[in-house]
Amino acid sequence: MTDSVEERIARVAFTPEGLAPAIIQQWDSGEVLMLGWMDAEALRRTLTSGRVTFWSRSRQEYWRKGDTSGHIQLVRGARLDCDADALLIQVEQVGPACHTGTRTCFDADDLDPVADATS
Amino acid sequence: MTDSVEERIARVAFTPEGLAPAIIQQWDSGEVLMLGWMDAEALRRTLTSGRVTFWSRSRQEYWRKGDTSGHIQLVRGARLDCDADALLIQVEQVGPACHTGTRTCFDADDLDPVADATS
Repeated sequence: MTDSVEERIARVAFTPEGLAPAIIQQWDSGEVLMLGWMDAEALRRTLTSGRVTFWSRSRQEYWRKGDTSGHIQLVRGARLDCDADALLIQVEQVGPACHTGTRTCFDADDLDPVADATS
Repeated sequence: MTDSVEERIARVAFTPEGLAPAIIQQWDSGEVLMLGWMDAEALRRTLTSGRVTFWSRSRQEYWRKGDTSGHIQLVRGARLDCDADALLIQVEQVGPACHTGTRTCFDADDLDPVADATS
């Protein structure tokens, strides 16, 4: 692909607040580690620096994953979905992804759907 | 887990619009197929019927995946993240997940991040 980083970022359909959800997936195992939010600048930093950066909606600031915890995410791939409003970032996760210490942020709460459903 | 479906749904921190992003993952391969949105009722239907149901933000209506295309999603698991504001639904995907005919909605657009980044 020969288009520039800015052309790629311009393809993203951000929300009115300027954000897009970013699914973070361990590149080799396929584990879904967490979901964060990126604005154009967070995506720019993620695409160009090799480290995942989010926009924190609660703190209203950029947040480079691992700067505090050491549990960094090294970018291995990045895809935009067919509606251009969701991001899939494939990473090498160093240490646990979740601030609670679990491997992923989806480990704790099982919503326990009905099993063996049919159509 | 012995809590009721309603207790489980009540744990979700929906946005002010009453929605939560739902990551849809093929349960065995780990592929991330798509991202959709659920309100409490879409999640209720998903947890209790065995078929994934979304809330369509563009059409403002419920949308049970596969009713038009036949490409249904059979629920195999459902998790809530540590902040209780994102859902991970594990499914058996019948046919392609994407309305464009590709396996996943993330197949088309490679954002081409820098490779071999270091910390």
